[in-house]
Amino acid sequence: MIAATVQAVETLRYTPAGLPLLRLQLQHDSEQLEAGMNRKVQCQLPAVIIGEKANLPLQSGDQIKVKGFLAQRSAKSTQVVLHIQELQRIQY
Amino acid sequence: MIAATVQAVETLRYTPAGLPLLRLQLQHDSEQLEAGMNRKVQCQLPAVIIGEKANLPLQSGDQIKVKGFLAQRSAKSTQVVLHIQELQRIQY
Repeated sequence: MIAATVQAVETLRYTPAGLPLLRLQLQHDSEQLEAGMNRKVQCQLPAVIIGEKANLPLQSGDQIKVKGFLAQRSAKSTQVVLHIQELQRIQY
Repeated sequence: MIAATVQAVETLRYTPAGLPLLRLQLQHDSEQLEAGMNRKVQCQLPAVIIGEKANLPLQSGDQIKVKGFLAQRSAKSTQVVLHIQELQRIQY
């Protein structure tokens, strides 16, 4: 799972099959070990939730933990989108 | 870990600190469960290896399994790059 902050939330839409679909922009900050050195990592990642979880009340600024898979935005696109399969809200 | 095929390998370079750095283009195909349905997923993902593992003899067509983290290509870029921390070659 990766921890992320919700930066932006689009309006809930529906797929042609009638499934709720929510597009988000996530910001992921972490510290990672690479070549023996710690480095701070920032990553803005477009994400999408398809299905029931798309109805969760998410808003900009929410801290979440997500799990999912990466896919291209469309057949012609090279943009990578995180498809969220599991989502936890981080409570403070 | 995600399974991927190496699509392209750039020439080995070195970071300003003298660490070997190898940029790759990966193709990841998988089947994922989303909203109760299986879907085939394709994803072309730029990747980079920094450190010793960058010296591994990789070439286009190689099947590998990788583990790592996502980061932006640069501070100004929105392109997402997979930083490979672990790499296994899939043998046939």
